[in-house]
Amino acid sequence: MKHKRGFASDNNSGIHPDILKSIERANSGHVIAYGDDIYTRRAILKIKEHFGKDVEVFFVLTGTAANVLGLTVSTNTFNSIICAETAHINVDECGGPENFSGCKVIPVETPDGKINIGSLKKHVRGFGFEHHSQPKIISISQPTELGTVYSPDEINELGKYAHKYNMLLHMDGARLSNAVVSLGVEFKDITADAGVDILSFGGTKNGMLFGESVIFFNRKLAENFKYIRKQGMQLASKMRFISAQFETYLTNDLWKKNAVYANNMAQLLYRELSELKQIKITQKVQSNSVFAVLPGKYIKKLQDEYFFYVWDEGKSEVRFMTSFDTTEEDIYTFTQFIRQTVK
Amino acid sequence: MKHKRGFASDNNSGIHPDILKSIERANSGHVIAYGDDIYTRRAILKIKEHFGKDVEVFFVLTGTAANVLGLTVSTNTFNSIICAETAHINVDECGGPENFSGCKVIPVETPDGKINIGSLKKHVRGFGFEHHSQPKIISISQPTELGTVYSPDEINELGKYAHKYNMLLHMDGARLSNAVVSLGVEFKDITADAGVDILSFGGTKNGMLFGESVIFFNRKLAENFKYIRKQGMQLASKMRFISAQFETYLTNDLWKKNAVYANNMAQLLYRELSELKQIKITQKVQSNSVFAVLPGKYIKKLQDEYFFYVWDEGKSEVRFMTSFDTTEEDIYTFTQFIRQTVK
Amino acid sequence: MKHKRGFASDNNSGIHPDILKSIERANSGHVIAYGDDIYTRRAILKIKEHFGKDVEVFFVLTGTAANVLGLTVSTNTFNSIICAETAHINVDECGGPENFSGCKVIPVETPDGKINIGSLKKHVRGFGFEHHSQPKIISISQPTELGTVYSPDEINELGKYAHKYNMLLHMDGARLSNAVVSLGVEFKDITADAGVDILSFGGTKNGMLFGESVIFFNRKLAENFKYIRKQGMQLASKMRFISAQFETYLTNDLWKKNAVYANNMAQLLYRELSELKQIKITQKVQSNSVFAVLPGKYIKKLQDEYFFYVWDEGKSEVRFMTSFDTTEEDIYTFTQFIRQTVK
Amino acid sequence: MKHKRGFASDNNSGIHPDILKSIERANSGHVIAYGDDIYTRRAILKIKEHFGKDVEVFFVLTGTAANVLGLTVSTNTFNSIICAETAHINVDECGGPENFSGCKVIPVETPDGKINIGSLKKHVRGFGFEHHSQPKIISISQPTELGTVYSPDEINELGKYAHKYNMLLHMDGARLSNAVVSLGVEFKDITADAGVDILSFGGTKNGMLFGESVIFFNRKLAENFKYIRKQGMQLASKMRFISAQFETYLTNDLWKKNAVYANNMAQLLYRELSELKQIKITQKVQSNSVFAVLPGKYIKKLQDEYFFYVWDEGKSEVRFMTSFDTTEEDIYTFTQFIRQTVK
Repeated sequence: MKHKRGFASDNNSGIHPDILKSIERANSGHVIAYGDDIYTRRAILKIKEHFGKDVEVFFVLTGTAANVLGLTVSTNTFNSIICAETAHINVDECGGPENFSGCKVIPVETPDGKINIGSLKKHVRGFGFEHHSQPKIISISQPTELGTVYSPDEINELGKYAHKYNMLLHMDGARLSNAVVSLGVEFKDITADAGVDILSFGGTKNGMLFGESVIFFNRKLAENFKYIRKQGMQLASKMRFISAQFETYLTNDLWKKNAVYANNMAQLLYRELSELKQIKITQKVQSNSVFAVLPGKYIKKLQDEYFFYVWDEGKSEVRFMTSFDTTEEDIYTFTQFIRQTVK
Repeated sequence: MKHKRGFASDNNSGIHPDILKSIERANSGHVIAYGDDIYTRRAILKIKEHFGKDVEVFFVLTGTAANVLGLTVSTNTFNSIICAETAHINVDECGGPENFSGCKVIPVETPDGKINIGSLKKHVRGFGFEHHSQPKIISISQPTELGTVYSPDEINELGKYAHKYNMLLHMDGARLSNAVVSLGVEFKDITADAGVDILSFGGTKNGMLFGESVIFFNRKLAENFKYIRKQGMQLASKMRFISAQFETYLTNDLWKKNAVYANNMAQLLYRELSELKQIKITQKVQSNSVFAVLPGKYIKKLQDEYFFYVWDEGKSEVRFMTSFDTTEEDIYTFTQFIRQTVK
Repeated sequence: MKHKRGFASDNNSGIHPDILKSIERANSGHVIAYGDDIYTRRAILKIKEHFGKDVEVFFVLTGTAANVLGLTVSTNTFNSIICAETAHINVDECGGPENFSGCKVIPVETPDGKINIGSLKKHVRGFGFEHHSQPKIISISQPTELGTVYSPDEINELGKYAHKYNMLLHMDGARLSNAVVSLGVEFKDITADAGVDILSFGGTKNGMLFGESVIFFNRKLAENFKYIRKQGMQLASKMRFISAQFETYLTNDLWKKNAVYANNMAQLLYRELSELKQIKITQKVQSNSVFAVLPGKYIKKLQDEYFFYVWDEGKSEVRFMTSFDTTEEDIYTFTQFIRQTVK
Repeated sequence: MKHKRGFASDNNSGIHPDILKSIERANSGHVIAYGDDIYTRRAILKIKEHFGKDVEVFFVLTGTAANVLGLTVSTNTFNSIICAETAHINVDECGGPENFSGCKVIPVETPDGKINIGSLKKHVRGFGFEHHSQPKIISISQPTELGTVYSPDEINELGKYAHKYNMLLHMDGARLSNAVVSLGVEFKDITADAGVDILSFGGTKNGMLFGESVIFFNRKLAENFKYIRKQGMQLASKMRFISAQFETYLTNDLWKKNAVYANNMAQLLYRELSELKQIKITQKVQSNSVFAVLPGKYIKKLQDEYFFYVWDEGKSEVRFMTSFDTTEEDIYTFTQFIRQTVK
């Protein structure tokens, strides 16, 4: 069956051929279940190459799990987690963070999905006062859910602020590769070296079948994670097939090529749309999504032909998302269709 | 890399070639994430063919998740769940059922992993008394963690007993196919038609890469499951790749062939081991595992050559498990090695 | 030991003499523990006199418990609870609502502690969408934590709005008596008849030793509350001593006299403070608290002499609270001291 | 209203007159809420006199809360808590320990409510194995729910065993005073000096209106307890009235007199019942309860006249419990009535 590529989400894409081959290669005979295998050891080494040799790494199955479990192991039930109002952990995990960690999640309004110290201050208080949830985590998404990207300095500043209050900096990096290539840096520059303590590092949205990881830059936090992962229903028995994917993903710059590709397609889409006066781009295009306001009456017609999501119904704001497999032709055909529709 | 097949667990096996092909076939273009796709619709139809058209089906990623989430949606925090002391939900899920559902898990001692009404009675009481956890679920594993199998009549009796007390019958069917072929029945006969309300139906241990499901025979229970699944971190974005596996698994009797094969290999292993006077088989061989007591001093030596687990260190009891890819030659080579070792 | 009365909180007060006598009277011989006693039956009848005969009533020990358990029994873990940012359930219960119910608590900014439909709309959405916490509760405090009071019409409107979306209206009535006398209505008018589904009705802040209750106007919600209360550690063994207090509280208008008295003292304080040009009253004085901004440099000096809380350090905003035992003399002495200090 | 004293439970009793007076004495003016008051400081000093100056003490409102919160703060969700099958935490807290701590509670069968190392061994294993709940707490009740008492040596042995495995010893001392006087020791001898790490020390069953405490002998464990208590809905605003009771309870041996009295009454009841051949005493009478089997047909008739509980319906086993206010006359009248009934 042949399916058209759309612009709904990078997770509507399939598996990159190299990743699929890595699964096939790992499919031989028996290996011990649950991660005590050669594929997992090699994948962890690969991750250490990119993120630093002192990290602790654990694979899980979904991005929500990477976030929820990484937050849970780092908190006590009486803590609070502060994040942007738009954060995946705040609006797209059906309350998993609260339910599993027991913590309060405190949303901060932002224009662009990025929090800063000014917006945090109001919530970073009440330490030692038992009536208040005790602030413990600042959680940022990189790139944000609005496609914007924190600079290394911005992350650093948040990290320092967090640590000053004995708090931790958590990063939801479901699309981290897209941010890294956007900034032209290395993984380390915006994680280990920028003060991040806990990272959800995802692969699914950039070519993997499934595969997410939790990386601890503060090893002490990782101490009990294996129990939390198992109790959290995220210990895969045939772990080798996640691990093999991650190894391939981080070898020969596959992660980078895919991310560059997706980002470039977003830029192309952005340029094409910018020419249309009926369309207003609403966020900086810094990774693989384009947010735009367009006349509401056309949305249905466009959606009949292409998958994509309405982000804010009230404002007629939509999100177009590119992925590793989007082609230039996809963009041109799509924008041509938009052009005809809205004119 | 070539790995030897061992006898540690059926989840040490890889992916059946037909299953792998189904993943490759589904890897085309974009489809909507999270299950609103043609592969998932087809897989659900397949499940309905086997389990009845009135069931509700949800795919998840691990067997622990299928159990924990199926139990959670069916209970309130003040309920209790009664199961065999050996049940996976009692000893192998790191307390996930208690933590996620909030319920008390009450273990019942059994000689063979099978609970019966006699052993339940002591715990099915205190209804309406607010000091006690209120009994709500009887949970059985089919086959049990000791490789034994409940007859349809036994299940029926437990189902009737559960319903008499307004309780529910839950079945952990991580290896359900092995039980079905062992009994020579259809899936329905020991689930829908035997009073089961909630089923964890697994594929990972019988040839799938990953793929578990929760099947509700009582649709009312399924009402909120989609939220519990998402909150429970088990909603896979690229769902099509679980669904495609399930469709193939349930087509052309693949599930059955694999299960028959694994069970036959266990029978062969059983016959071979029975001839050795140093070895005592401790449980009926009714599915794909053989439990045996053997002189403790040989265990290490055997394990150096083959993966397998010591079940009960005190008794020198071990578990040998076969899987869909175990060959006759594997059995003969293994038993030959045992023969030489223990003589 | 003799302690001065301050203005920190009505819960710094002691026990009203009539309430204390009711405890002494109930202290005779043995009665069955946990609520199956004559005192509890009588107290429940009293509550029904005031709130309607179809309510279900349960006594608990703290106001936080009344809120947390009332919310827990009415929700599922995947629900959200919407409240004012200043709500006790949001900022003063150390994350108890999230932790015990598993729900997301969504705070809404307000100038005066009161939410309205306009401010709710943004959060009452996503029904049926499994990625989002499902909105289930609108929770209001009456009076609010800022001392303001919802009119019966305002409550009615929120109730209708909640029910339109199959949601519930919860009221934190830790100081409900103060609101009732402020509005010159009956308890029913702003609860049963205004669309409230679940009420935390408190007595501790208005003369009781300890004693809070959860009242369900929707009996179906109460079905499992007894289990939730016991599991929630709030089933008092010597229940008669809570019940006896409630009976006395609701007899001969003791609740009303105390509330009228406390409110009047707040009005007196308000009038006295209004005369001082250095002090700015920041909220309407509608119950028993006065919020005021005063020059920050005087706060410490005032606090050395009288207990009271700084509400917002940044703004030099303080809260003065009166209680059933505040005397006119207390007010005059206090305001005299303020006058001298700030001039 | 005058109520007859029965034999249902010591918590059916009222308030000891000295305790009631302490509440009246504390009822003056305003004191800061939530425990920062002189009464609480003095009560804590009293507790330190009896339990050692290095303890940390917190007051709560119910015995279930003392247990659940003490266990919660000392565990992680992936831990297990091992206790006697008859333990209050296992059967009388409606699953509160599981729900609030997230832990697995593992019941151990015992003939007399007392666990020993032999019975624990099977469950103290699997350390480091992520599939298993990690054993963390051994919880004992002193006296047990069957009225039996652990000797200091027995406790010591359990404490050493727990610590050997990096586990903790928890004691449910809802009736600790009764055990202390039964053994003729000091509080310290069976707690601080016997290896107990966390103690629920209750007063309600021995003359207090309400008042329970959690005492930590390992101060590190207490670090976060204040947050857990608040989140756990157990921070009383008018704390002074719990504290005042505890101070009086531990002054002039009130605790001891009450406990001696209750225990003596149980001995008297035991002696009287021993003379009746239709009645068989089933447990050692070491505190303030008597367990007995008597012909089932008489139970209803006895219960019509006196409150008491059937402990095990199958065996016609009943529990008679004495309390601080039971009189010799109560015992003689009761046993006379039994004598007439069963003959």
